[in-house]
Amino acid sequence: MPDEPLRGRGHDGPLFGLRMDKSRSRRHRWTRTMTTVIGFDADDTLWHNETHFQEMQRALAAIISGHTGETTPIDDPLMAVERRNLKKYGYGAKGFALSMIETALELTDQRVSGAEIARIIAMVHRFLDGDIHILDGAVETLTRLRHNHRLILITKGDEIEQQEKLAKSKLRSFFDTVYVVLEKDPDTYRSILGREAIDPGHFVMVGNSLRSDIHPVLAIGGRAILIPYEVTWKHEMVELPADAPKAFATLNSLRELPAFLENGENRR
Amino acid sequence: MPDEPLRGRGHDGPLFGLRMDKSRSRRHRWTRTMTTVIGFDADDTLWHNETHFQEMQRALAAIISGHTGETTPIDDPLMAVERRNLKKYGYGAKGFALSMIETALELTDQRVSGAEIARIIAMVHRFLDGDIHILDGAVETLTRLRHNHRLILITKGDEIEQQEKLAKSKLRSFFDTVYVVLEKDPDTYRSILGREAIDPGHFVMVGNSLRSDIHPVLAIGGRAILIPYEVTWKHEMVELPADAPKAFATLNSLRELPAFLENGENRR
Repeated sequence: MPDEPLRGRGHDGPLFGLRMDKSRSRRHRWTRTMTTVIGFDADDTLWHNETHFQEMQRALAAIISGHTGETTPIDDPLMAVERRNLKKYGYGAKGFALSMIETALELTDQRVSGAEIARIIAMVHRFLDGDIHILDGAVETLTRLRHNHRLILITKGDEIEQQEKLAKSKLRSFFDTVYVVLEKDPDTYRSILGREAIDPGHFVMVGNSLRSDIHPVLAIGGRAILIPYEVTWKHEMVELPADAPKAFATLNSLRELPAFLENGENRR
Repeated sequence: MPDEPLRGRGHDGPLFGLRMDKSRSRRHRWTRTMTTVIGFDADDTLWHNETHFQEMQRALAAIISGHTGETTPIDDPLMAVERRNLKKYGYGAKGFALSMIETALELTDQRVSGAEIARIIAMVHRFLDGDIHILDGAVETLTRLRHNHRLILITKGDEIEQQEKLAKSKLRSFFDTVYVVLEKDPDTYRSILGREAIDPGHFVMVGNSLRSDIHPVLAIGGRAILIPYEVTWKHEMVELPADAPKAFATLNSLRELPAFLENGENRR
């Protein structure tokens, strides 16, 4: 997977070579269709996740720089290790832990110490043991939307980690069904919609990743709403193509979602 | 989970404090019921798995003993680390890799070297990259059984690892459905049978673990067949209770399964 983005840690960052200008990308030619089912991404859509991975990555960089005697750039080497491992490890913190250790070993010529490896592992334990920080407006939005819609959660990642995060989030009861999937591609969405007996024309997916939440859903005839996460890497910021499909929109926050769905669907 | 057996690596070993005497445990008061659906466990039932983990464990012991200057027993400390991590890591090789590293750090007072940690990780990569070795008779047995039965695979473990092993095994096409589950308890089986619209009275589970494959299935009114794996730890060998239920039997190998199901169901 040479062009695979850095997703070994559950990161859903868009990587489409597009640049997004929030000021004008807020709303697009959204089609008016009755939405009955809304699919939600979880990491960085309903709760914070990437922030924690970036913190761990900074701590790893400090450990490595302590050996190399300089500020060693680790983003690219770590990304390379994650890509190399992705097919074997899948997404999640356990694979990220191993990829961090492998990166530390490689960049220090195996001089990284046992104590430092223990610190890397301890960081991951703190992440796995830590609280879930729900995004602003998530509870209010889900509370409002579930009155008129069926809500399902569709998240990539490691089953046990995602189920644990969902349990900690206390958001489980908002969702009719929860899918933890290995990959979010058109086949995955087709299979979920088929199993749930959902007409793609009545389905909207909400998430922070063009690659995982938007494009594959548009590809199977659904609609999709992008809500970019606060710490998406700069070099991954996306621009909407000039021919953005009518089934696609971008919002600034979850709080805008209920009104957008209600107004957008009654207007035009 | 104080009494949880060592299962952080997907091990299904029975741990019921019973002792099995193969010479007399071969067949029990099996009820005659029409079997329409057979559930199969995967690791150590259809393909070898535990053997590889025991090999890695021996290599880890050698690394640790190199530091402690003696033959340090690592089975119990490793098991303790795996148990401690089970709820966070779930089953699978990634969690086992981290637990091996954590054990090495603890038992060597963090003196384990980067090169040794790299060797531990390399072992796990070799395992994940390695071939799947199917148990003797598995293909013939599945080929024969699928003519008259619906077959489903029910395996505990890490989704991406189990799917990868299944793909390598080339056994996928024998099964109508595949379930990779976090835990094999009565609720799990109840949910699967419900979703598949299977009457428990027409369901038989085949596996190597009393704890995961037999007891929970008997508990929900199904039948179950234990086929012990070759390297189950001695201290985990089980004996059938005197009041072994009529819905339970033990066979020596998969090869005995078709005849047992056919004869056992037409006899008595």
